[in-house]
Amino acid sequence: MRPGEERCRRRVNQMDYSLIESLVIPGETRIVFLILDGLSGLPDPQRGTELQAAATPNLDALAARSACGLIDPIMPGVTPGSGPAHFALFGYDPVESNIGRGLLEGVGIGMELTPRDVVARINFATVGADGLITDRRAGRISNEECHRLCGILQQAVDLSPDAEFKIMPVKEHRAMILFRADKLSGEMRDTDPQKTGMAPLAPAALPGHESPEAERTAALVNRFLDQAREALAGEERANGILTRGFARAREYRTLEERFNLDACAIAGYPMYRGVAKLLGMTLHEITPDPRSSFEALQAVYRNHEYFFVHVKPTDARGEDGDFEGKVKVIEEVDALLPMITDLNPDVLVITGDHSTPTQMAAHSWHPVPVLIASDLSRVDGVKTFDEIAVAAGSLGRMPSVNLMAVALAHAGRLAKFGA
Amino acid sequence: MRPGEERCRRRVNQMDYSLIESLVIPGETRIVFLILDGLSGLPDPQRGTELQAAATPNLDALAARSACGLIDPIMPGVTPGSGPAHFALFGYDPVESNIGRGLLEGVGIGMELTPRDVVARINFATVGADGLITDRRAGRISNEECHRLCGILQQAVDLSPDAEFKIMPVKEHRAMILFRADKLSGEMRDTDPQKTGMAPLAPAALPGHESPEAERTAALVNRFLDQAREALAGEERANGILTRGFARAREYRTLEERFNLDACAIAGYPMYRGVAKLLGMTLHEITPDPRSSFEALQAVYRNHEYFFVHVKPTDARGEDGDFEGKVKVIEEVDALLPMITDLNPDVLVITGDHSTPTQMAAHSWHPVPVLIASDLSRVDGVKTFDEIAVAAGSLGRMPSVNLMAVALAHAGRLAKFGA
Repeated sequence: MRPGEERCRRRVNQMDYSLIESLVIPGETRIVFLILDGLSGLPDPQRGTELQAAATPNLDALAARSACGLIDPIMPGVTPGSGPAHFALFGYDPVESNIGRGLLEGVGIGMELTPRDVVARINFATVGADGLITDRRAGRISNEECHRLCGILQQAVDLSPDAEFKIMPVKEHRAMILFRADKLSGEMRDTDPQKTGMAPLAPAALPGHESPEAERTAALVNRFLDQAREALAGEERANGILTRGFARAREYRTLEERFNLDACAIAGYPMYRGVAKLLGMTLHEITPDPRSSFEALQAVYRNHEYFFVHVKPTDARGEDGDFEGKVKVIEEVDALLPMITDLNPDVLVITGDHSTPTQMAAHSWHPVPVLIASDLSRVDGVKTFDEIAVAAGSLGRMPSVNLMAVALAHAGRLAKFGA
Repeated sequence: MRPGEERCRRRVNQMDYSLIESLVIPGETRIVFLILDGLSGLPDPQRGTELQAAATPNLDALAARSACGLIDPIMPGVTPGSGPAHFALFGYDPVESNIGRGLLEGVGIGMELTPRDVVARINFATVGADGLITDRRAGRISNEECHRLCGILQQAVDLSPDAEFKIMPVKEHRAMILFRADKLSGEMRDTDPQKTGMAPLAPAALPGHESPEAERTAALVNRFLDQAREALAGEERANGILTRGFARAREYRTLEERFNLDACAIAGYPMYRGVAKLLGMTLHEITPDPRSSFEALQAVYRNHEYFFVHVKPTDARGEDGDFEGKVKVIEEVDALLPMITDLNPDVLVITGDHSTPTQMAAHSWHPVPVLIASDLSRVDGVKTFDEIAVAAGSLGRMPSVNLMAVALAHAGRLAKFGA
């Protein structure tokens, strides 16, 4: 490495994770990250934010004995997808780590990837006799239909000897496809034109990413699409396929390798499971709601050192623009919180991956409240856990990527630097 | 530039502006930056800071419906000149963008520059028969005198065939000179020794910047000074010339190129006009006071997307050490503020380029209060717009250079990063 590069890397988000990694020491302590997806929001003139409107006696009591602050998922002003936002929470540079959502979901539903693989998301769609798309979701076919169609395609399509391929159902009209061959490219544009009344686009490299690898990949995808069209010709609704979110597999260093943490994930949604799996976390069974997630945490608490507990409905209600619904989810989590605090984790971090204000019904760039509860937290004057109160907390405002290092410190898992 | 260097530059101050630029999407929204030069200060034991002492009902009401915080112009501890402080506000790395004030003023008064040009500020000065300076400002000659003398020099001096040169009056004893030739250097020391009783220094490279280009430039400046001395020999007061602030012209990417913003500047002083022009902003007529500046904003509000409105007297009174005068200017701006808020800009940012505490009668490094008023601002509990109150605001404390990205986000002009 040249000196300039090293200096650069150390500056990443003001964190020098190579320094952090060099300081890691073994410990017996346990760290829990409770991630309420899309947690934070914007104030309603009458009711304040969803966190302010919710009755959260347990979160507030915890905040009162914690260090509080704000975190920026990527950098000020940048609205993150959940993928990079989670990489940051786990101490990975979110820009450098960013990878297609399709790949994360593929891993999350159990695809075993090698570095040769290229993965994409597919939609079953309805295409008219004129070749134009009439329904981009094939009438939201059932999970069973999706399963049956994937079986047909796996049977009918043959890409040998050039490549192996594997197709896996996800949900309704959605599935994943994996191409395994040497020298493929993940920098491919979507064939989904994003609207009806158009023909699917031809597979091609993303602008500026033209390469022999991209040509090889485009030819392979074309061959797949041709055979798939034939195999689905008799279907009434799902007679076409749209691809999007191409990504090439890559390898990440695990939490074990970087931080000496035996980590596990309690998360239900494929994408979050995918991130966790790529970072070497043990995946636990799919948990449909906060209560079963917290029960799962209790069940495995003795078996690991780091726990990523993911709660999705805060984000889902935020994306729905459902202020009251988001308040209810927060209150539900608050009521269940003793299930976690009773475990007495050495370090309990509660935060979100990003904001999802119901007023915007979308992710946003606004920073996210965070609390760190531990015996070594610098307890501040913050008595309620909300976006405004924590701004005066002892953690200040920092990039999300800093959080893992700070949590390791609170867990007694970082040695002193220098004498 | 090597890849490593570029990445370094991108990360300065925690912002990756290449990421921000890659996320820019078109919008119909309008952004106003009202910059009160040298806005912030230090508390007087009785009256607080100038902002606290001033009656500012409009600013306070706006703060109460805004997100508030503090910005650091360059980095903590660094006192900026107005040039780099403004580059930062516009989303340009202030260290990398830094350029001589002379050049900024030259552009601001209408010099049309090419990348070959080297520019310097000149003072007309009085020099005794012994060659020693007796008055560095030639008795502050009138603007008319300055104009006349520049005419004489433009006529009398001939640098052909080596270079073209152009001299332009600025104000009183101050003027600008431009040298146009191949392979000149802008890394030249001042010939102004900064005190009387000394002879002007010889033109020479700045220490550590010796080069054939610098030698060529020194020879050219010498030739100019020799001829000028002869041409001015009959003048009673302005019979000498001192040069300072050499700078070589360079090109910047514009706000349009980087952020897809049709930008305009409403600023009276040459240096600010120069920064704005270099960044591709449309310059509007010179506005002598806040009221006429705000009227100019109203007049052109439909014609552009981004507006830089500059108010100078806050800084001028600060530099004078005039606490009461600075309070009055702040109150004047406050009273006129409805002229801006009535336009209902989608995003209104009010801040300063740096602090100019009257107690110091100089620029300082102290962070600067900022408010962002928009429908998507995370309104906090801050009810008064001053240095102390905003420290508890929802924006926290961040580098000034972040502000443009955050403003673009609030204006709906940045897409999501990652899925």
